[in-house]
Amino acid sequence: MFNAKRIDKLAEELSRGGIDALFMGPSTDLEYLAGLRLFDDERVKGLMVSREGKCFAMVPLLYREEMTASLGQDVSYKIWADHEGFASSWAAGCAELGLEGKRIAINDGVRAVDLIEMRNAVDFKWANGAETLSPLRREKDEAELDCLRKAGEIADKVMDGVSRFIREGITEKDVIDKITRLYEENGAEGLSFSPIVASGPGGSMPHYSRSDRTLRQGDFIVVDTGCRFHGYCSDMTRTFCLGEPDETQRKIYGIVLEAQKTGEAAVLPGATGQDVDRASRKVINDAGYGDCFLNRVGHGVGIAIHESPYIIEGNETPLAPGNVFSIEPGIYIEGKYGVRIENLVAVRQDGTAEALNKFTRELVIIK
Amino acid sequence: MFNAKRIDKLAEELSRGGIDALFMGPSTDLEYLAGLRLFDDERVKGLMVSREGKCFAMVPLLYREEMTASLGQDVSYKIWADHEGFASSWAAGCAELGLEGKRIAINDGVRAVDLIEMRNAVDFKWANGAETLSPLRREKDEAELDCLRKAGEIADKVMDGVSRFIREGITEKDVIDKITRLYEENGAEGLSFSPIVASGPGGSMPHYSRSDRTLRQGDFIVVDTGCRFHGYCSDMTRTFCLGEPDETQRKIYGIVLEAQKTGEAAVLPGATGQDVDRASRKVINDAGYGDCFLNRVGHGVGIAIHESPYIIEGNETPLAPGNVFSIEPGIYIEGKYGVRIENLVAVRQDGTAEALNKFTRELVIIK
Repeated sequence: MFNAKRIDKLAEELSRGGIDALFMGPSTDLEYLAGLRLFDDERVKGLMVSREGKCFAMVPLLYREEMTASLGQDVSYKIWADHEGFASSWAAGCAELGLEGKRIAINDGVRAVDLIEMRNAVDFKWANGAETLSPLRREKDEAELDCLRKAGEIADKVMDGVSRFIREGITEKDVIDKITRLYEENGAEGLSFSPIVASGPGGSMPHYSRSDRTLRQGDFIVVDTGCRFHGYCSDMTRTFCLGEPDETQRKIYGIVLEAQKTGEAAVLPGATGQDVDRASRKVINDAGYGDCFLNRVGHGVGIAIHESPYIIEGNETPLAPGNVFSIEPGIYIEGKYGVRIENLVAVRQDGTAEALNKFTRELVIIK
Repeated sequence: MFNAKRIDKLAEELSRGGIDALFMGPSTDLEYLAGLRLFDDERVKGLMVSREGKCFAMVPLLYREEMTASLGQDVSYKIWADHEGFASSWAAGCAELGLEGKRIAINDGVRAVDLIEMRNAVDFKWANGAETLSPLRREKDEAELDCLRKAGEIADKVMDGVSRFIREGITEKDVIDKITRLYEENGAEGLSFSPIVASGPGGSMPHYSRSDRTLRQGDFIVVDTGCRFHGYCSDMTRTFCLGEPDETQRKIYGIVLEAQKTGEAAVLPGATGQDVDRASRKVINDAGYGDCFLNRVGHGVGIAIHESPYIIEGNETPLAPGNVFSIEPGIYIEGKYGVRIENLVAVRQDGTAEALNKFTRELVIIK
């Protein structure tokens, strides 16, 4: 349901940023503010909130019943039928809130093609609203942290189950199916993203999207999965070795493990996302594998699987209690394999990291 | 893999439309042109194609291996690392193709927040590219039609299984789980969308997104599902009655059935999407339920679950052989129930409709 306290905080945030209103399409922002999770399609829908805290909702006629039930009485509804298109509803809503010529932030749930039509219908100055709600969303309260802890616990159990299931001769798809069943059996609401099971050479692609390879002796197998619990996500990665690793595999695993632990240890009072990225990355750079680490050290997690704070060069905002993010260094060697180890951590009141994943980070060798 | 013939046709289409280039984010357009289906996240990626047929790809470093393997040698790669952001790669690609100040169409796989950053980095005129590829995509060849027929056959089998599975006391979620298993057992590649199982009052919401209700005697149960086969989607709806329907239920079902059949019969040489919408809608209007039919009569289906041609008031483009679309009239009565009957049809060479779904449209009463 509509969360009036969060809407008020958003209005304050808009004033602070010199933004007149924020328009949100279907997104985790709308889930956060109004518990709104819709079957999605190309019909333009969403909620405008002005810095005065006034709201209008863009509602395709066939979503009217659901959206009015979620958003309640304090919202002005601009309903449009398929054959009318959304432009005149958009114009009417903007006129009602006095937004012509004003600065409207657009969030990440809006498509570029719809922004183009919005601008054709109404003259306004835009702003990138992808991070407008981040200052609210990234400081999790205890209730939110408990959901994230629980989602992490479930992921731990699933990872344990996976470690017992993996064997020579099954396919990556078999492992993905097992992961899906394990999450169901352990009380997850659903997956937070499609599981990544990347064996052998597939492991060098951090977001490997295939699943047809058969597991073989000597493989590194990267398993990256997460679920949702009361809307909040988990996200963890372990890399297993099927059979005895060779010397290089042991060495590379050891470097990534040290980088991951160093990242967690760098979460200290006053540290920024950049500090944590640098600390973890330095371990890999110093070992001579800097070119094989292809991404930022981590990303925030909450209702969204990727959100603020980002653990990345250039992020100079100090981490704060209640921030939750991943620390996931990796080494990716094209044509051979990849190794990634990922925990979520929450920043404690004392500024240090509480790991939300407990499953061992040491190399698990599957015989 | 990169489909050179389709790229050439796209370049012709751009010339015809006075567009200098099309930028496509992750989308069914990219699947159609290059077989590219990626694990998606907020990192900006995609392909620019100019009217001269020149291409550059925006590639986040961690997708480099997959994207270069799919797109091959004839593409210029603009690779960016997380901490750099995508703007300078975007600017370099646009400069290489001489696109500053030119008209660039943006497709539906790009987020509004990224379009804002693209415009901040490069001066260009935008155009809405949501339908740029539609003239190519909506005329399916025989190989595509065969995939769509097969996807429809699988959906028919699943609907038959569902009709035998539904019984009093199970939940909507139980039916959804059964649907998922049936698609797997019948050789589907995956679902084309999350199944909708809307019983009793939930049925009045065409895109009902819950699943917690228990089925009861006297319920209408709307079941709307589809799968993918070699990338191509099916999409069909049937409404079952659990136990004997009352007189009003029989009457309403009969109206929707007649509207659906009338829509299929209106697919004739020279007919437009608007003609089919009007013919089907007239049956419901004439019966006095016009206010209870909340959406267009149908939408095209192909690699995307919603694409051109749309069967809607205002679409005056004549239907053509190889077009594939849904005909799905419905009557939705808030607080009570809904009835929808949906077939996909393909336009034959002679201009008439070939139904891609064969499962009975008559009222199935489940005892």
